[in-house]
Amino acid sequence: MTEPTMTDTTPASVLARPVVPAPTSGATARGLGLGEAHLRGGFWGELQTTNTAATFDHCLQWMEHLGWLANFDRVASGTTSTERPGWQFSDSEVYKLLEGLAWEFGRTKDPRIDATVRALTERIAAAQDEDGYLNTCYGHAEQQPRWSDMAMGHELYCVGHLLQAAVARYRTVGDDPLVEVARRAADQVCAEFGPDGRDGLCGHPEIEVGLAELGRALGEPRYTAQAGLFLDRRGHGRLAPIPLLAPTYYQDDVPVREADVWRGHAVRALYLAAGAVDVALDTGDAEMLSAVQRQWDRTVERRTYLTGGMGSRHQDEGFGDDWELPPDRAYCETCAGIASVMVSWRLHLATGDVRYADLMERTFFNVVATSPRGDGRAFFYANPLHQREAGEDVPMDAENPRAEGGVRAPWFEVSCCPTNIARTLASWHTYLAAVDGDTVSLVQYAAADLRVALDDGAAVALAVSTDYPVSGRVTVDVTEAPGRPVTLRLRVPHWADGATVSTDGGAPRAVAPGWADVTVATGSTVVLELPVAPRLTWPDPRVDAVRGCVAVERGPLVLCLESTDLPDGVDIDRVRMDTSVAPVTAGDGAQVRAVVLPDFAQPAGRPPFGPPAPPAGGEPVDLPLVPYHRWAERGPSTMRVFLPTA
Amino acid sequence: MTEPTMTDTTPASVLARPVVPAPTSGATARGLGLGEAHLRGGFWGELQTTNTAATFDHCLQWMEHLGWLANFDRVASGTTSTERPGWQFSDSEVYKLLEGLAWEFGRTKDPRIDATVRALTERIAAAQDEDGYLNTCYGHAEQQPRWSDMAMGHELYCVGHLLQAAVARYRTVGDDPLVEVARRAADQVCAEFGPDGRDGLCGHPEIEVGLAELGRALGEPRYTAQAGLFLDRRGHGRLAPIPLLAPTYYQDDVPVREADVWRGHAVRALYLAAGAVDVALDTGDAEMLSAVQRQWDRTVERRTYLTGGMGSRHQDEGFGDDWELPPDRAYCETCAGIASVMVSWRLHLATGDVRYADLMERTFFNVVATSPRGDGRAFFYANPLHQREAGEDVPMDAENPRAEGGVRAPWFEVSCCPTNIARTLASWHTYLAAVDGDTVSLVQYAAADLRVALDDGAAVALAVSTDYPVSGRVTVDVTEAPGRPVTLRLRVPHWADGATVSTDGGAPRAVAPGWADVTVATGSTVVLELPVAPRLTWPDPRVDAVRGCVAVERGPLVLCLESTDLPDGVDIDRVRMDTSVAPVTAGDGAQVRAVVLPDFAQPAGRPPFGPPAPPAGGEPVDLPLVPYHRWAERGPSTMRVFLPTA
Repeated sequence: MTEPTMTDTTPASVLARPVVPAPTSGATARGLGLGEAHLRGGFWGELQTTNTAATFDHCLQWMEHLGWLANFDRVASGTTSTERPGWQFSDSEVYKLLEGLAWEFGRTKDPRIDATVRALTERIAAAQDEDGYLNTCYGHAEQQPRWSDMAMGHELYCVGHLLQAAVARYRTVGDDPLVEVARRAADQVCAEFGPDGRDGLCGHPEIEVGLAELGRALGEPRYTAQAGLFLDRRGHGRLAPIPLLAPTYYQDDVPVREADVWRGHAVRALYLAAGAVDVALDTGDAEMLSAVQRQWDRTVERRTYLTGGMGSRHQDEGFGDDWELPPDRAYCETCAGIASVMVSWRLHLATGDVRYADLMERTFFNVVATSPRGDGRAFFYANPLHQREAGEDVPMDAENPRAEGGVRAPWFEVSCCPTNIARTLASWHTYLAAVDGDTVSLVQYAAADLRVALDDGAAVALAVSTDYPVSGRVTVDVTEAPGRPVTLRLRVPHWADGATVSTDGGAPRAVAPGWADVTVATGSTVVLELPVAPRLTWPDPRVDAVRGCVAVERGPLVLCLESTDLPDGVDIDRVRMDTSVAPVTAGDGAQVRAVVLPDFAQPAGRPPFGPPAPPAGGEPVDLPLVPYHRWAERGPSTMRVFLPTA
Repeated sequence: MTEPTMTDTTPASVLARPVVPAPTSGATARGLGLGEAHLRGGFWGELQTTNTAATFDHCLQWMEHLGWLANFDRVASGTTSTERPGWQFSDSEVYKLLEGLAWEFGRTKDPRIDATVRALTERIAAAQDEDGYLNTCYGHAEQQPRWSDMAMGHELYCVGHLLQAAVARYRTVGDDPLVEVARRAADQVCAEFGPDGRDGLCGHPEIEVGLAELGRALGEPRYTAQAGLFLDRRGHGRLAPIPLLAPTYYQDDVPVREADVWRGHAVRALYLAAGAVDVALDTGDAEMLSAVQRQWDRTVERRTYLTGGMGSRHQDEGFGDDWELPPDRAYCETCAGIASVMVSWRLHLATGDVRYADLMERTFFNVVATSPRGDGRAFFYANPLHQREAGEDVPMDAENPRAEGGVRAPWFEVSCCPTNIARTLASWHTYLAAVDGDTVSLVQYAAADLRVALDDGAAVALAVSTDYPVSGRVTVDVTEAPGRPVTLRLRVPHWADGATVSTDGGAPRAVAPGWADVTVATGSTVVLELPVAPRLTWPDPRVDAVRGCVAVERGPLVLCLESTDLPDGVDIDRVRMDTSVAPVTAGDGAQVRAVVLPDFAQPAGRPPFGPPAPPAGGEPVDLPLVPYHRWAERGPSTMRVFLPTA
């Protein structure tokens, strides 16, 4: 591996940037610092508000209730035993929540949040061993020894999430006891697994991105180098085989630089890719960057759902083969959606390519926003595009033991998604824009105030007004700009044929999907009009599982039909879309023309295959489609994103 | 539970019947004894010959090589340790092979087979504890205690297979050391788990059918009663939860009598159902019988593949929801096919209903016959109906760690299928016919000689000549019959519209699907003509995964298109069936008219959904389809049973 050259010395102006590739590495832009934008209500503002009001407490209460927090106390007091609540990776949930709380305090300055962070940090720090090792499942009395199960132990995975939490703290308050805990843990990892140390790697990637982020934040190239070592160790079959799982499960089949596509466990593949981009950018490793771009291309084009969801198989929470995209058994884990955003964001900052930003939007609106229930206290883990049988309500005091079920659950046996949602929503506004020289790119659209620092410290302030995605109108008032030409770059999503931009009340000009650049100054007003009328979307002919079906999208939203909206006695399977009638806008959804087929013939005492069904009549009917992200909010339902055509 | 009334006292004439429900219980017929039929080559005769020549040795060698046989020796010599080769259920593979060998000796009288049975029995007997307990994974030095993991320990499951092996031995040679081992094991189970004993049941059903078969063979109602106890204990949540799996996995969610459909792990559900029918028939339990019939109806009509395969999910090797029948991720485990045959056979004998026999034929030709490679030394575990990526050859000295892969493998990490194939093929000819009073029903068609005992001991001898399923002509010569009217009942499969029967050279008369009865006497010749020309088969509109596709069947055979048969450079995804041209017979397959679409457009940097694909031209082409059971015999290939229509 190339010796990393760190150039980011974390100047105060960019301190709070969650992701800041170093400019020398070939990255074209930086993301926003936490304080450079503020949401003003709207779609994402409301999700963030609910996250603040409910989700953090919800997660804390569950982890206290289940004893996942007390695991740290037991290590601290030397009272560990063979009985330990939670899976071996439960520490990571505490760290992800802590990361979210750190961003939350950075955003709100709420002293109660700060107190929570400090209290959690104290309990965690007390569990850290003398040499920096930190894990509540291994290495203490009556536990398995440290590093005794690299394939499934998740020790380095947990450290990775600890480091990400510390980065959030460092970028919002600077040095702090949590940062110190992380530094000691990272140093211990480097000592144990360094070039002269144990030739190991973790079955669940995450340490790579954690080390790279911490290395960048603290200006510590040793951490970045260690991340690079872990990356290069993978793909050579070093990990012990897991019964009944192939080494693709943890991407130990092919080296990161050589792989052409993501495969195996989706969250693992995507955290790994995020770390790979970080290391590639911070060390100028063009080969590694190019490998991840290649993997993104093929995976997005052949293994990604209409929602942006990734993961076609329940069996290993993993990717399927090319074109294997079953809607009913779609896994589309919420965490995979978040990890996909992490990768695409890094690739976007590295290249400026609009495609990465387009996928982020698709994933934000249709995976990330789908998981939390309106009250922020229940979550989808898997996000299928077709629910065959209505789920059963999960009581608010019960875990859902499995990832599936068709209803949002307050907690899961493996509960990675709620805390991942919490940390993502707490920092969501940092994805709004990217800054490159004197160009500010609006990457996502939401009602927000931005005040962005250019390289020389000059500020550009933007007031973005919009009720996107209900309408497609986005108004940007430039309230502050330096006295030189500044470019406002607007993302025109790939679906937005017919988009227009107008400046200072002038005539709208057509803009093609991609980027629309406008030169602005203080006082400029730019209006982007994106056509968000409902549109029909067909699968590629190779996506067998939804052949003969069509979906309806509305701007960035994927819509769906829920049984809740069907006339009494009509089964969702009997609905056929009449695609000769264009869907029309109805609220934030659409109204479509469909035909309801008569009841199907009774089955015949043999498998359901035989002569063609006789041509069926059917009643025309207008049906409402609702945004997919809101499905099952009105009680358990059956649901389809893809509807057969008449 | 009703106290069982055993009326089968195993008279010599029916001693060798693998499945013999007691006539008082409402069963309408009995199956053949092992010596009542002999195959004369042909489709099934050749499979049986290969089984004899290769598969038994193959399985024995692997189990010796892997140490699964030596596990018994280690228990016998008191040298067990924490290290033990094989999964906790590996004993059952030895027992299934032993069952196959017992039938094989009964059929061939080959003294080498008998010697193998005796040698294996000796090693197994030496491992049996004083009190009858027999298991090589639990209960000995450095092992977990007996019955310490009822959910996943498989101890009773293993005993169940031991009992089935002993039944095969008893029905072919009478009392014997293996029968004695089984009797002691069964007695120990009854003592441990009887009405006053441990209130437990096994996570993997099998003990039920094993006890019921042994009880019937030995005339021992205690065993049948114990099977009934186990059946009635299931469905009340007694089994410990398995992380991430629902209690449906082992059918502990709903009592057997109350369930409407099979669900969860398919082999478990089906072995359980087989045991339930046995107990229902032998104890006159009409409620239990009716429950299984109800479950069969719904499962076959909504959760069963065109091949007869069952199991739509890899995740839990289980059934999916109604209509969830993805062709690419079809699990259709070979063992589930065999277990399905076990259930349908019992239901057919109980009711005489032709539908059960139809499903058996479908499953025999398209699941059971698909698993073994032509040389009998490699096997499919899962039997998908669509292979997206050609597999990779598995070396003949290597295990396939997973159940999937698109190629037959010599052995698996979990290797239940090879030995299940071995025991099924060794006794396949017993499924040929059923006997009810003076009616002999031909249930399956194969070249064979039958000499069947009627109730009064009178014999009916039939010479069946046919090359079915290559042609549909089946000629039955009655070479011996008593001097009174005897009915020959011929099964007319549900797909055989236009079938005819002629007697003694007379004019053919049309017969409808169902049963065709002919009164015969010594010297009669009956010719059945089944139309086996290729036919198109469409999915029910609710089977989403193959919407817009058609399959081709030819008699009982499901056909498929393999990449092996495509012109160079043509990807299987580009083939569209022209259903306006009827498929024609070609060998034992068909030739169909198709269109090869031009190469698809390149993907576009986003998920594969968007505007409709432009209407595509394409070249008409004639393509051969081959029987599904032979796919991947010519090397790894991509494959489709269901082809999109033009």
